Amino acid sequence: MNIGKRFTAEWLGTFWLVFGGCGAAVFAAAFPNVGIGLLGVSLAFGLTVVTMAYAIGPVSGCHLNPAVTVGLAVAGRFPVAEAPLYILAQLLGAICAAGTLLYLASANPGFDLMANGLATNGYGAASPGGYGLRAVVTTETLMTAFFLIIIIGATSYRRTRAAAPVAIGLALTLIHLISIPISNTSVNPARSTGPAIIVGGVAIQQLWVFWVAPICGAILAGLLGRLLFVNEAD
Amino acid sequence: MNIGKRFTAEWLGTFWLVFGGCGAAVFAAAFPNVGIGLLGVSLAFGLTVVTMAYAIGPVSGCHLNPAVTVGLAVAGRFPVAEAPLYILAQLLGAICAAGTLLYLASANPGFDLMANGLATNGYGAASPGGYGLRAVVTTETLMTAFFLIIIIGATSYRRTRAAAPVAIGLALTLIHLISIPISNTSVNPARSTGPAIIVGGVAIQQLWVFWVAPICGAILAGLLGRLLFVNEAD
Amino acid sequence: MNIGKRFTAEWLGTFWLVFGGCGAAVFAAAFPNVGIGLLGVSLAFGLTVVTMAYAIGPVSGCHLNPAVTVGLAVAGRFPVAEAPLYILAQLLGAICAAGTLLYLASANPGFDLMANGLATNGYGAASPGGYGLRAVVTTETLMTAFFLIIIIGATSYRRTRAAAPVAIGLALTLIHLISIPISNTSVNPARSTGPAIIVGGVAIQQLWVFWVAPICGAILAGLLGRLLFVNEAD
Amino acid sequence: MNIGKRFTAEWLGTFWLVFGGCGAAVFAAAFPNVGIGLLGVSLAFGLTVVTMAYAIGPVSGCHLNPAVTVGLAVAGRFPVAEAPLYILAQLLGAICAAGTLLYLASANPGFDLMANGLATNGYGAASPGGYGLRAVVTTETLMTAFFLIIIIGATSYRRTRAAAPVAIGLALTLIHLISIPISNTSVNPARSTGPAIIVGGVAIQQLWVFWVAPICGAILAGLLGRLLFVNEAD
Repeated sequence: MNIGKRFTAEWLGTFWLVFGGCGAAVFAAAFPNVGIGLLGVSLAFGLTVVTMAYAIGPVSGCHLNPAVTVGLAVAGRFPVAEAPLYILAQLLGAICAAGTLLYLASANPGFDLMANGLATNGYGAASPGGYGLRAVVTTETLMTAFFLIIIIGATSYRRTRAAAPVAIGLALTLIHLISIPISNTSVNPARSTGPAIIVGGVAIQQLWVFWVAPICGAILAGLLGRLLFVNEAD
Repeated sequence: MNIGKRFTAEWLGTFWLVFGGCGAAVFAAAFPNVGIGLLGVSLAFGLTVVTMAYAIGPVSGCHLNPAVTVGLAVAGRFPVAEAPLYILAQLLGAICAAGTLLYLASANPGFDLMANGLATNGYGAASPGGYGLRAVVTTETLMTAFFLIIIIGATSYRRTRAAAPVAIGLALTLIHLISIPISNTSVNPARSTGPAIIVGGVAIQQLWVFWVAPICGAILAGLLGRLLFVNEAD
Repeated sequence: MNIGKRFTAEWLGTFWLVFGGCGAAVFAAAFPNVGIGLLGVSLAFGLTVVTMAYAIGPVSGCHLNPAVTVGLAVAGRFPVAEAPLYILAQLLGAICAAGTLLYLASANPGFDLMANGLATNGYGAASPGGYGLRAVVTTETLMTAFFLIIIIGATSYRRTRAAAPVAIGLALTLIHLISIPISNTSVNPARSTGPAIIVGGVAIQQLWVFWVAPICGAILAGLLGRLLFVNEAD
Repeated sequence: MNIGKRFTAEWLGTFWLVFGGCGAAVFAAAFPNVGIGLLGVSLAFGLTVVTMAYAIGPVSGCHLNPAVTVGLAVAGRFPVAEAPLYILAQLLGAICAAGTLLYLASANPGFDLMANGLATNGYGAASPGGYGLRAVVTTETLMTAFFLIIIIGATSYRRTRAAAPVAIGLALTLIHLISIPISNTSVNPARSTGPAIIVGGVAIQQLWVFWVAPICGAILAGLLGRLLFVNEAD
């Protein structure tokens, strides 16, 4: 498949993940009386992946996440040489999405960028539930490792490969159901970087955590995935 | 397939979309203590499409939406000559559904047509969160474009085509999770027209927005879809 | 398939539908602070069908509902001669489930049979939102008709038949998202009869409505389904 | 398949079930204003199974539950000789997950181990809704029996076997939607044992119930499954 198409697909998909997931958090999570809450936000993040994996999966593989790209490369499922271009597309998509969210949210007179911060990730005072650095690093590493185990496993076997987008997207929903209170849930350095660049401040200072922890988790899972799963041909 | 069957299918399906989605909003969203909220309404809209796409997809393609019909025509997936008849069926289904909703809602003594307006779409004072025209136009255009990208992508590839109803229906759920607070979510001119015709007033004055923005988004996505996806034969 | 197995399967499945759907309503809907609400109850009803359709679908067809049995017979998809036995199994399953619910609910000192009535269906003062007879009859007829259209359509086509349990179960979820406030949602005479027999009183007096309306809707849909869908062989 | 891989898979999967399901309960269920409630916890438990069944199902069968292992052995679907090793892996995974939860939850200054107890199971004063021993035993036995019926049925038929992870995972969601208020829902002796060992006290005293009832239910269902279903070869 042509690299231009794949770059476009990763850009579009990561735009959708950040716009949809963070957008649901910003616009709808705490809407008076009928807000969607953390359950709705968790569902939104997962559905960005379910929908895009069916749409662009056959084009680019639908990574939408530098940790996924790294983990799949470690597992021997993705050519290392193409990782930088994928990660670039993901970052550009995430930044454009966060910019669009800011544009739209600013149209609401009650919007306060510092108060709800475009759903940025953080620890300590920047964690929704006040969890510290150690808890956040442990959670992000563990959640990303399981995410990659599910991604590698669910795409390994011919008989159920067509259902992998459901398994992988709902894995992201599940991860959010568990960990939004801890870190606002990243498991995706691009998803953290987009809003952090637009919002600045603490989100930028703490951004390194949401690169280091997810990528460490993804590398561990990539190594384990090599041992545990057999990649069947279609 | 016989055009009478296809017309009937589009009529039925669009009735179901408007009756189910707007009905969940009117009857159940704010039910005391146990109401389904915006999350339940988002799920209801999406499930109208999941269920009908499995039921009538093989009959008419299950567009249920003039923007979908236009976007698929632009993408070269649907004969332009049949678009007017499809759009007519969709409008008739939507109007009948809105009329039935009014009949049922009026049976409840507490119902106030002007207050909850059969889930009409709008901007400014008619936007659930008070978002203005520019935010609403941007959101509706962007959401419909991504909706069509997902529709075109998810139906392109033989291996996952049987799961397209799930991807497409849940895309509509996701779109509602993000954007009900902004525009009450249309991405579908028929869905906006049915309730607007029954309710009148501001909903009719603002109705043009919910034709122009979704159809512009659909045309953009149709063009992009031509470049990005390859339509595999079954 | 042996008729004893099929009878057992319909008994089990209808027990599960009534125990699961009404049980979620009785035990969990209004649990303090973290109750599942009407959204959770809607999901529970739908998941009883998703889960049983995959488990016993290949055994009995997983009707679990006299209106489904009648509608499929009218559509030419089920032998009329077997309908009485299926309906008997469904009624026995529903009654046993309602009795088990009463046994368990009574273990809670705060339980009041007359106040939350094992999730019985009703109109007027017995409707959750106070909707009258005409609105309830219209809603139950319309919802059952669409339910059968989806059942007949989703099982007609070879390519997507394996996903029919998802489409049909989520159709039941959607129907509950719309109509619990109106009639507490039946679309299933067995589901209404089980709790009504255990609770008695108004639920028994109004029970005829939840036989007549769903079966009329199912007959209409069965006739329409004959015209609209082509039943492909596996 | 190599027994080391299968042991690892069951360990990982049961870790995920307990960490994800109990973690959602501990961290997110009652988060102020936007908490996920019992509906979110029910979804989380189910999604741990949906995701792992697609990932490790082809490796170990994805039991994650001693009652499932016993029920499948009774039904003739799993070699009895391997049951002890599977159950050992499940217990170790569950205990490690509960330990990790305690480590993370303790990072929150507001955490009170005795108050929310890592989502342990119990009856009487330890039941979320105050249900007594008889109601809890009945519910756990019945829920596990239906869980196994769905597991055995959904994996029996070639045409829908690829969807079994969805049916089985959502069955667990449904079981939680019904029965969290009664027993905090176990249907899985490993899921009860992990948190009980970490928390101690009443959870350990009552732990026998959550071994006896689920395993009795699973044996009953295993026997019934032998009669009702035919295990088709792939």
